[in-house]
Amino acid sequence: MQRTAPSDIAHLHSLARLIRYHCVTTTTVAGSGHLTSSLSAADLMTGLMFGGSFRFDVADPDHPNNDRLIFSKGHASPLLYSLWAVAGGIDEQELSSYRRFGSRLEGHPTRRFPHAEAATGSLGQGLGIGVGLALNARRLDQLPYSTYVLLGDSEMSEGSQWEAIQLASHYHLANLVGIVDVNRLGQRGETMFGHDIEAYARRIASFGWHTLMIDGHDMAQIVDAFLEASAERARPVMIVARTVKGKGISFLENAGGWHGKALDEDQSKVALAELSDIDPNVRGVIAAPENTRPARAIPRPSRAPHYEIGTSVATRKAYGAALARIAWQFPQLVCLDAEVSNSTMADIFAEQVPERFFEMFIAEQNMVEVAVGLSMRGKVPFVSTFAAFFTRAFDQIRMAQYSGANLKCIGSHAGVSIGEDGPSQMGLEDIAMFRSILTSVVLHPCDALSTEKLVEVAAAYEGMVYLRTMRQDTPVIYDNDETFQVGGSKVIRQTSDDRLSLVAAGTTVHEALKAHDVLQRAGVPVRVIDAYSIKPLDVRALQEAAAATRGIVTIEDHYPAGGLGESVLHALADRPVPVTILAVSKPPMSGDAAQLRDFAGISADAIVRTVERLIGGDRANS
Amino acid sequence: MQRTAPSDIAHLHSLARLIRYHCVTTTTVAGSGHLTSSLSAADLMTGLMFGGSFRFDVADPDHPNNDRLIFSKGHASPLLYSLWAVAGGIDEQELSSYRRFGSRLEGHPTRRFPHAEAATGSLGQGLGIGVGLALNARRLDQLPYSTYVLLGDSEMSEGSQWEAIQLASHYHLANLVGIVDVNRLGQRGETMFGHDIEAYARRIASFGWHTLMIDGHDMAQIVDAFLEASAERARPVMIVARTVKGKGISFLENAGGWHGKALDEDQSKVALAELSDIDPNVRGVIAAPENTRPARAIPRPSRAPHYEIGTSVATRKAYGAALARIAWQFPQLVCLDAEVSNSTMADIFAEQVPERFFEMFIAEQNMVEVAVGLSMRGKVPFVSTFAAFFTRAFDQIRMAQYSGANLKCIGSHAGVSIGEDGPSQMGLEDIAMFRSILTSVVLHPCDALSTEKLVEVAAAYEGMVYLRTMRQDTPVIYDNDETFQVGGSKVIRQTSDDRLSLVAAGTTVHEALKAHDVLQRAGVPVRVIDAYSIKPLDVRALQEAAAATRGIVTIEDHYPAGGLGESVLHALADRPVPVTILAVSKPPMSGDAAQLRDFAGISADAIVRTVERLIGGDRANS
Repeated sequence: MQRTAPSDIAHLHSLARLIRYHCVTTTTVAGSGHLTSSLSAADLMTGLMFGGSFRFDVADPDHPNNDRLIFSKGHASPLLYSLWAVAGGIDEQELSSYRRFGSRLEGHPTRRFPHAEAATGSLGQGLGIGVGLALNARRLDQLPYSTYVLLGDSEMSEGSQWEAIQLASHYHLANLVGIVDVNRLGQRGETMFGHDIEAYARRIASFGWHTLMIDGHDMAQIVDAFLEASAERARPVMIVARTVKGKGISFLENAGGWHGKALDEDQSKVALAELSDIDPNVRGVIAAPENTRPARAIPRPSRAPHYEIGTSVATRKAYGAALARIAWQFPQLVCLDAEVSNSTMADIFAEQVPERFFEMFIAEQNMVEVAVGLSMRGKVPFVSTFAAFFTRAFDQIRMAQYSGANLKCIGSHAGVSIGEDGPSQMGLEDIAMFRSILTSVVLHPCDALSTEKLVEVAAAYEGMVYLRTMRQDTPVIYDNDETFQVGGSKVIRQTSDDRLSLVAAGTTVHEALKAHDVLQRAGVPVRVIDAYSIKPLDVRALQEAAAATRGIVTIEDHYPAGGLGESVLHALADRPVPVTILAVSKPPMSGDAAQLRDFAGISADAIVRTVERLIGGDRANS
Repeated sequence: MQRTAPSDIAHLHSLARLIRYHCVTTTTVAGSGHLTSSLSAADLMTGLMFGGSFRFDVADPDHPNNDRLIFSKGHASPLLYSLWAVAGGIDEQELSSYRRFGSRLEGHPTRRFPHAEAATGSLGQGLGIGVGLALNARRLDQLPYSTYVLLGDSEMSEGSQWEAIQLASHYHLANLVGIVDVNRLGQRGETMFGHDIEAYARRIASFGWHTLMIDGHDMAQIVDAFLEASAERARPVMIVARTVKGKGISFLENAGGWHGKALDEDQSKVALAELSDIDPNVRGVIAAPENTRPARAIPRPSRAPHYEIGTSVATRKAYGAALARIAWQFPQLVCLDAEVSNSTMADIFAEQVPERFFEMFIAEQNMVEVAVGLSMRGKVPFVSTFAAFFTRAFDQIRMAQYSGANLKCIGSHAGVSIGEDGPSQMGLEDIAMFRSILTSVVLHPCDALSTEKLVEVAAAYEGMVYLRTMRQDTPVIYDNDETFQVGGSKVIRQTSDDRLSLVAAGTTVHEALKAHDVLQRAGVPVRVIDAYSIKPLDVRALQEAAAATRGIVTIEDHYPAGGLGESVLHALADRPVPVTILAVSKPPMSGDAAQLRDFAGISADAIVRTVERLIGGDRANS
């Protein structure tokens, strides 16, 4: 193995001192920030970035063959920013803007900082994102870049870490290197294992990783460990480093009570005096990457979908079919599934385009993290599982918005209409969850044709899209040349005398159509709107319906809070019209789908009864 | 070690045959259900329940010293129900109601079935619930009962499993026994490790468990393994069993494509013919538990909280203070925290009542699972972390509603008002998340006094409560003798000439009060309502405000979808009034709290501007 010359070690120490200097001063100027968590990892990251293993074109952060470095312990942001200042990636002066309103240098890294590979700060997510980056290198872009992830010891208790660890091993990601900064102290005291680095190494090794245990302040050991990691060809590598929290400042070293705290001016002076021999002009040089770029496939148009009106097809099946159909129209499209591809019907894609399908097993958190990583490298990841089980990854979905991930989540088995499997399998909070993400789009088509077209819309859309599919077959109601869009809707029944407007999505569109027919025979014309784009809603269509009829009834196979009904109320908040929300308002159970819709109060019968009550009320009031 | 007599083994085989018979017939009658996943574990569970290790009073499922058995692989419900039929816990006839509307025997177990210790069916949650049950036995009720958890091999890929595994080891829960049913086949094909039971055992052992590898169809090995597990005194025990999916029916054994499928009538006949020598009258006898019951502490009244109006106290601090204050009023109250107790201020309780505080480390999924387990044994668990990080446990929170868990979730660090730490740490979707749970209560007090009183209300309330606290100090605005309740609100500014009503909660109450004063000076009286109970809302107070003023402005430190604003719209849906929702409608960043509230459009200034615009609009329209 190559050994590092003493002069190089001395240079690295000099860089580490300057980096520590920046960590102290930036946090003191900001008045807050995680200084001690930065100091423990300063030597590790200096050795990585400037010790020869890490390869990155500082002038071109987007170079596709740059090595990737993620701070999963995002609170060590003072260290991240200081490293890039010393590397020339940002101007040193900018460090003084740390944590200020408008600064790119946020308390925890977001993608506003160009050298952050993804937003971190919710612990336990960086490694899974790293798996995505490494998987991209190995299996998609076929590039030699490596991915490095700095991990905190506290965050190793997150289950998502072990999901990432198992998957990296399963996919033989030897191009992935984790570094656990075992500084013993968590936010409120000692971690579960303190300084027992073997406890970490033993567990990680049992999952099939190559593990190395080092002193995280011995620069020669650090540099050698990264060289050894670079040479590994079969397994992912974890460097478990014993470190000292607050390292370099005597009164902070291995001391409790300093987590997340900055030094005041006086303390800062004492600290800086301890960091003797600072050379403010020393600069770190990062090795250049090979100038290799991925082959770019040329998009090929896909055939149009074709369905016969009146035939019965599950929208989940249309999802799988659409994905396979448009695979060559979107060469960057990839698909991940959490071991339920024969339920979500992602297996149609998996069979036809196996090289772009990745089995993620039952580990939804990591699935979303990997998708975020793939998205950061320009892929368009479609991830699918039951709508209910996306709740497992809500924190990852929440964080994906701060990474600006181009994530497509496809949730099947919506609502009580799944029937006998019972409430644990029913997606009844999923619309609320995905709507709550500020920048999300939420789609819920009711038939196979609109599903096919909206999958295509989702693939072309830049940003987070949730598309909700259904387990059961539903009739095709749209003609093959109909078009659908984000923010669109379809008025599918309409007369000039409509008394009320029924606004539905998914299953309940078909219930509304049945109710329409019953009401029509009873001489009560109603409008029926398919609000397939729940977010954003087609506000104009709703306003027209509100103006033309005496009120709106929304119907959804979802719990009442945060779903279609409240979405409609919100859209019409400034020009209010009476809205009646029909949603699943009793705890559901196993049973036949139709029975359950009736029990829940969202069946055609329930709609008819509601309309009759409202019309009756009208009559009584008029 | 004790060995089992051959006659006993023969009896167990006879029981297992009858149980398999029931599994086949119940799923065939139902037309669906997970037959093959039940057959693989039939011998394991027969050996456990009737082999002498398991102790349970069938006539008294609620006996506090019963051993506990959780099917984490809840889809094996045909086996669970068949076991209890053979044990005399339910009438055999009831099996024919499996999966029917109204039956207690749901597709996946819920608490409607009295022998289900908790609802399962979302994989990877049973072990954490088991940790809660075992922790209760060991550390709270001090009872000798054991907890058994049947795990599927597929679900071992869920990170939550490893959170539970690490915590059980940390707390030395030798009274917890897991059984991994390694039947090789997941829903859509082979699992990550197939029949490599050593891969599981190696990983689990590395986390400090006592592991046993057995043939899951060798009844003597099974019985012996459970005896060995019972004898363990230091470590939790995992029995890793090699099994055959579909065991006992030749054409189902180890065959793909049968997951979640029932046999049709003809197939069922063939299958039953293979299960020769069924004795329909054989009955399993479960050993009786020791009739030991926990000591019951007598509640002692707590002193009332006391704050001075105008002093500044963070509501998170009032949470910790309240919990410590009422600890002896609610002897069943316990507190769990995810390694942030010095931020959530649960550490005030931890210091004063250490025997009822449990550090859960950074593993929010397991924290909620453990709390569900504790709740099932009569405890009142308060679990706390940052509001943002409860998203990590949304699936567990979702499932907790089907267990009917008496769960109290306390989320700190609400909204952009946390300031410099940035978006990853800001709870901005938490109200939407908790509101979406059908049976939840959502509280968001604005000052220390109301927080103290609402913590007490939450402790006394039977069911799921979310209480949202704030990082920053806020002024105390309520007198010590004010009362607060689920579904309540406070009208804190009111005149007979109010033009508009401001409805706020938490931070924004104080912004609304500032806006009120500015507007009052400008001659525009407005009503101010503290909607501290966001779910259920005080509908009457809102209706009165709607009737008395020209419209409502809601203000919340939360994203727009699913929060306070939509909650108010929903409450007033049938008698609409113009509502303007002020919420965080731009992606936030690090910065000063006041700057961020202004940027987000939820500051006093933003409220004043909005009211002026609305009043101006009024004038223009009138």
